[in-house]
Amino acid sequence: MEIIRDARQMQQWADSARIAGEKIACVPTMGYLHEGHLSLMREGRRRASKLAVSIFVNPAQFGPNEDLNSYPRDFERDCALMETVPVDVVFAPTPAVMYPPGFQTWIEVTEITQGLCGARRPGHFRGVATVVAKLFNIMKPHLAIFGEKDYQQLRTIERMVRDLNFDVEILGMPTVRERDGLAMSSRNAYLSPEWRTSALAISQALKAAAGRLAQGATHARELREAAQATLHEANGLNVQYLEVVDALTLKPVDRIEAPVLVAIAAFAGSTRLIDNCVLTPPVRHQRPPRA
Amino acid sequence: MEIIRDARQMQQWADSARIAGEKIACVPTMGYLHEGHLSLMREGRRRASKLAVSIFVNPAQFGPNEDLNSYPRDFERDCALMETVPVDVVFAPTPAVMYPPGFQTWIEVTEITQGLCGARRPGHFRGVATVVAKLFNIMKPHLAIFGEKDYQQLRTIERMVRDLNFDVEILGMPTVRERDGLAMSSRNAYLSPEWRTSALAISQALKAAAGRLAQGATHARELREAAQATLHEANGLNVQYLEVVDALTLKPVDRIEAPVLVAIAAFAGSTRLIDNCVLTPPVRHQRPPRA
Repeated sequence: MEIIRDARQMQQWADSARIAGEKIACVPTMGYLHEGHLSLMREGRRRASKLAVSIFVNPAQFGPNEDLNSYPRDFERDCALMETVPVDVVFAPTPAVMYPPGFQTWIEVTEITQGLCGARRPGHFRGVATVVAKLFNIMKPHLAIFGEKDYQQLRTIERMVRDLNFDVEILGMPTVRERDGLAMSSRNAYLSPEWRTSALAISQALKAAAGRLAQGATHARELREAAQATLHEANGLNVQYLEVVDALTLKPVDRIEAPVLVAIAAFAGSTRLIDNCVLTPPVRHQRPPRA
Repeated sequence: MEIIRDARQMQQWADSARIAGEKIACVPTMGYLHEGHLSLMREGRRRASKLAVSIFVNPAQFGPNEDLNSYPRDFERDCALMETVPVDVVFAPTPAVMYPPGFQTWIEVTEITQGLCGARRPGHFRGVATVVAKLFNIMKPHLAIFGEKDYQQLRTIERMVRDLNFDVEILGMPTVRERDGLAMSSRNAYLSPEWRTSALAISQALKAAAGRLAQGATHARELREAAQATLHEANGLNVQYLEVVDALTLKPVDRIEAPVLVAIAAFAGSTRLIDNCVLTPPVRHQRPPRA
């Protein structure tokens, strides 16, 4: 497994692979890898002949009061995990490589980033879109794989790729969960045993919303209420948002007539956790239109 | 000469060329070609094995009160001129191909776009950066060539390429002028004979600034005054800006100690013309620093 820290060198690796007719899959990560990341890498391994992973805690996607400095890092452990996939090349630049003095170019995806995390983390998706564009130009993948846990991020990247004509196929993969349902996240490492227990309510709230839809709910409000009730029972969880939005546009919906995203962000103590699920309304028999 | 109107098809052309080991030069234009454009194409012809030219009047770089609708267009004439270079492939998309419904991704180069044209044409360089990034992802060039007449545009694109790690070499080429000095521009087609005469003062003003520097001027103010005097003599020219800025940062300078850009934008009637020159101060004998 090759480790590359320089952007130009990474481009040369990609050029060589492409000239040799290889198909490159890439998995951009911020490191501190868990089974969710590894599932993306294994999918990349299956779908391409070369697998490149980036490990970069991207300062540009953290707000001034967020956890950039405390974000968990363990490059050696990450490398050991990547060897098991196996990964062909790791791109692990420093912030100075990615944002040298004089850096001043930013990519904004203006609409799909308006709500949910975008509304609570100003500049976050600008940082995400910019770093992902950079990584695409550096790693030159044919295919890039992202987790659906960061659903708004996935949709933002898809939109950017389409709008800017990046010739990269984007693949979203299902959230990987702990046995009890908690969505895997590098930030779970922050949780005390007590907060770990409380945090479980997030995925349970999503299940409650799904259950309510299965029972015949027709409006977003009903799903929100079901999720809310579950979250209320959790010990001290501070809900930042609980929303039911159109799964494509991420705009709020009232009546559920197409797939919706139920999305939650909540603080367990100082740890911000997010989770979501896409729910598709059952096909209902409709009365024929009156003649 | 192949004409391609679809982005995906253009990418496939570029992929094939790259797999065959070709080097692709591209020259992005808005069409209505003149000798300035052709000089860029001939340079591309010399430096690469495949030459791709785009012809696209980019709505995103025009302001609401600018000349998008009246901008001169003559695709047949452009094709005849390109055949003389010769050009291998022309990418000529419609606005709907480049900005389909739902388009919402923009690239901002935040600092170098602050002054000069950027200050007078809000959104202009956002439109330029975005369309050029799209064209790079569509045409996949190894080399892209731009004219120095649009000096701020050239510097903006260089900055974007570096910041976003586009693996494209950017080459700027000298402004091509009419015999009497007027910088070639598609917009010269708008000029009546009277305005054509007045417009000449723009390039003459740049010459006056250069002359003043050669005569020993040490401050930007002196160059501005020399240029201003020439512009004042012209019949009815409406000067939008006349600035002396650092040639790298495009920030205003006072004392001239490094190469400066003298840049002018002026309206000849309703026709907005720009021109510029880079002036390098002569090496002067300096007193040794005091011990």
